[in-house]
Amino acid sequence: MHALLLIAHGSRREASNDEVRDLAQALKHQTGDEFSIVECAFLELAEPSIPDGVSVCVEKGAESVTVLPYFLSAGRHVVTDIPEELQKAQAKHQQVNIKTAPYLGSAQGIIEILIGLSKQAS
Amino acid sequence: MHALLLIAHGSRREASNDEVRDLAQALKHQTGDEFSIVECAFLELAEPSIPDGVSVCVEKGAESVTVLPYFLSAGRHVVTDIPEELQKAQAKHQQVNIKTAPYLGSAQGIIEILIGLSKQAS
Repeated sequence: MHALLLIAHGSRREASNDEVRDLAQALKHQTGDEFSIVECAFLELAEPSIPDGVSVCVEKGAESVTVLPYFLSAGRHVVTDIPEELQKAQAKHQQVNIKTAPYLGSAQGIIEILIGLSKQAS
Repeated sequence: MHALLLIAHGSRREASNDEVRDLAQALKHQTGDEFSIVECAFLELAEPSIPDGVSVCVEKGAESVTVLPYFLSAGRHVVTDIPEELQKAQAKHQQVNIKTAPYLGSAQGIIEILIGLSKQAS
């Protein structure tokens, strides 16, 4: 089974963390057959942590975990912190294939989304 | 003339701020005739500030400024801090029509982008 793990920064404001949890739910409904497990995890300030998020996927039967960084820029979090957390998870679950997708801000389609939003200004 | 002002958080890491500046440039090339001025501004840690970013637009001849929050969640920055900064700008440029677009994380299209990214994992 393949798992998708959406990783966000985490916020002191629980409503922001819930936005991420809702997004993971929405992804679950739309990824179709590709990912039978979709979870989220947080770098800091919210639960589950990244290693715990990977563990949740493994407990649900994941043989591979695709990590999806919900971050806008290739800052320290994306370049250093997330890979470090994933190393911990990989050490714990050596049989699991952990892959990382490009971070959100790197996607070409962001520009089209921003143009669409600009037309909804009020 | 209409201006589009992309607003990001700002980072201590200058490369992250440059990603935002590059994105504003890319937007400039793709918004077509709708916005003859496209600039960016930062809530903190980078220049220009939001009021200064509005001023740049006005100096370039903007009669209206559409603010586009490059943020993933409706946290304090989106709900409180950016509106406060825009009030300062509006007080300084009372003749300018300042409108705010929905923040990036609220866009429906984000899910399709995330699904696309998940297929590029390695």
